[in-house]
Amino acid sequence: VSAGPGPPASGGASLQHGSPVAVALDLGGSNLKAGLVGPGGTSASLVSRETHAELGYEAVLSEIGKVVEELRADARERELSVVGIGVGAPGPLNRPAGVIEFAPNLGWSQAPLAADLARLTGIPQVRLENDANAAAFAESWVGEGSGARCLLGVTLGTGVGAGTVIGGRLFTGAGGLAGELGHVVVRPGGRLCRCGRRGCVEAYFSGWALVERCRDRATEHPRHSLALDALTPEAVIEGWLRGDPLAGPVVEFGLRCLALALAACLNLMNPDRVTFFGGLSRSWDLFGPILVDHVRGFALPSAFVAATFTTSRLEWAGVLGAGGLVLSQSADL
Amino acid sequence: VSAGPGPPASGGASLQHGSPVAVALDLGGSNLKAGLVGPGGTSASLVSRETHAELGYEAVLSEIGKVVEELRADARERELSVVGIGVGAPGPLNRPAGVIEFAPNLGWSQAPLAADLARLTGIPQVRLENDANAAAFAESWVGEGSGARCLLGVTLGTGVGAGTVIGGRLFTGAGGLAGELGHVVVRPGGRLCRCGRRGCVEAYFSGWALVERCRDRATEHPRHSLALDALTPEAVIEGWLRGDPLAGPVVEFGLRCLALALAACLNLMNPDRVTFFGGLSRSWDLFGPILVDHVRGFALPSAFVAATFTTSRLEWAGVLGAGGLVLSQSADL
Repeated sequence: VSAGPGPPASGGASLQHGSPVAVALDLGGSNLKAGLVGPGGTSASLVSRETHAELGYEAVLSEIGKVVEELRADARERELSVVGIGVGAPGPLNRPAGVIEFAPNLGWSQAPLAADLARLTGIPQVRLENDANAAAFAESWVGEGSGARCLLGVTLGTGVGAGTVIGGRLFTGAGGLAGELGHVVVRPGGRLCRCGRRGCVEAYFSGWALVERCRDRATEHPRHSLALDALTPEAVIEGWLRGDPLAGPVVEFGLRCLALALAACLNLMNPDRVTFFGGLSRSWDLFGPILVDHVRGFALPSAFVAATFTTSRLEWAGVLGAGGLVLSQSADL
Repeated sequence: VSAGPGPPASGGASLQHGSPVAVALDLGGSNLKAGLVGPGGTSASLVSRETHAELGYEAVLSEIGKVVEELRADARERELSVVGIGVGAPGPLNRPAGVIEFAPNLGWSQAPLAADLARLTGIPQVRLENDANAAAFAESWVGEGSGARCLLGVTLGTGVGAGTVIGGRLFTGAGGLAGELGHVVVRPGGRLCRCGRRGCVEAYFSGWALVERCRDRATEHPRHSLALDALTPEAVIEGWLRGDPLAGPVVEFGLRCLALALAACLNLMNPDRVTFFGGLSRSWDLFGPILVDHVRGFALPSAFVAATFTTSRLEWAGVLGAGGLVLSQSADL
C-alpha cells in the first residue's frame, strides 16, 4: 500500500468505535484511491494505488475486491460498522443500475461494477457514482463549499466532468447523467472526441486532448520545444507559459473552449461556487485567471459576479464524496 | 377587456368560495395577460391586453395596477381570498429584490416592479418571477410535465429563456438567475445580441433575431420573397418552408444554434422533459423535428434518449405559473 498524494483529510482520530463508515473508492484512469469514510467526513486507512486499467476489467475488479477486503479488516480492527461501498468512477454511468456504460479513459464499456462488487464482497449496498459528482458532493459536505446554495464541481483530469450540489443535495438529473460538462459541444463539426462526437470541450481542454493536439499539430510548428514522446498535460501548460509556438495556441484555444462551456453552466445554473478538481487543477494558478477572464466575456454579468472560482483543498475529495453519498440520509435531486 | 388567446385552463367553476387565490400576471413584450389562480391550477377572470411597452414603465405600471384592481373586485364578488400578486416578466431579474434588471424587449432597466406594485395596490406580497420560470412551473404543476423528475421549459418568443423544475420545485440557482438559455454563447465573436454580448443563442433564433437577420442579409439574396417592411418571425419560418433563399439559411443556422444550447442543457441537467412555450413554439410542427434532430447530433446519446420534447398545451402557462408560485408552499431550489 503506497502513500496517498497528500495528507489525509483526517487521521481517523475522530472515527469513534461503533461509528458507521463507508468503504469508499475513487476509481481513476491512473489511480485507484480508497479509504474508510465516516460521519462529518472523518476518514481512515486512506490508500492510493495505480489502477492498471490496461490489464482489463476483471483484473481491476479483483484488485478493487482486495482493497475492499483490506479496508473491511481495518474497519473490524477499529470496531467500525461498514454500512456499504461507495465508488466514484468516470462515466457516463447508468447509476441506478450501477453500470459504467462507457469509460474511454478506462477502456471499458457496459461494466456492471456495482453488482460485481456486491457479489465479490458480500456487501449488498454498493453505490456507483460519477467521480465528478462524488468530488462535488465532498466539497459541499466537508470542504469550502459547505455554505454554497449551488456548487458546481468541475473535474479537470484525463477527462473533464462536473457535478452540481444544490442546497447540499446532489443534483443528478432525471437519469443520473447531469453534469456531463466534458461532452458539451463547443465546436460543431470540430475535433473528434473519445465519446465519438465532434467538438466536445474535452477534445480541446483535458489531459488527453492537450497532449494529442500538440502531437497532431507538431509538424506545423517545427520550432516547438516539447518532448513529444513523453508529453504530459503539465508539460504542455509549461510550454504555453514559456511561449512555445506549439503548446501556446493549443492551450489558449482550449481555455476558450472550456470557458464557453463554463459560461453556459453559469447562465443555466447560476452557481455561487465553482470548484475545480483533478490533476490539471494543480496548475490552476497558471491558467485559472485567464480561464476566468474568458468566462467573464461569455457569461451574463450578473451570473458571472455571483460565482466564486476556486480549486478544492480536499486531496481526497473523490473518496470522501463516494463515502459521504453512502452515508448521506438525504435523497438526491 | 379583450378575449384571451385560447380557452382558459378552467372556467373558474372549481374555485370554491373562500378559496385562496393569487392575482397573477404574465408581462410580455406584446401582451399583458392576467387572471385569478387558485389551488390545483383553477383559474378565473383570465384577460389579455396589449402591453404597449412603448408608452414607458410608468404607463405600463399604471395599466397593471388597473388590471389588478379589476381582478381584486372579481375576487371579492366570487368570495375568494387574495393572498398575493405573482408577476412573470422577462429578465434578467433581481428576483429577491423584485427588480427587472434589464428587459430589452420591454425597453426597461432597473425597474422596481414588485415594490411599485405593492405600493400601488396595497397588497404586500408581490412575487416577481422570470416568465420562463413561471411557465415551466405551470407545466410541472398542472400541465403534462407533472410527472417529470427534471423539466426544462423553454420559451421561444420575442426572446429566448428557460426554466427548470426539479421534483416539482423551481430551480433558481444561487441568485435566481438560472435558466438564461437565450444568452448562452454559441458563436464566440458572433452576432451582437440585445444583451450587449456577441454570439448568444437569442441573436440567431428568437422572434427578433429571425426578423433582424433577414433584414440584415436581404441585399445578399435579392431574389428573396419576404415582405421586409412588415416581417414577422412566423413569415420567416414560412419563407424557410417554401425554400426562400434569404429565410432558408437564417432559419437553418438558427436551429443549429438553438440545438447546441439545448444539447448543453441535456448534458448538464439531464431533463426527462423539455417543453416549449411562446409565440414561436406555435410553429413547432414545422421546425421542431429538425431542431430535435440537431439536438440528437450534439447531445450525449443517453441524455438525448432520456428527454421527451413537446410543446405546452397550457395556453395560460405564464399566468398559471406566476400564480402557482405565490400559492406554492414548497421553497425554491
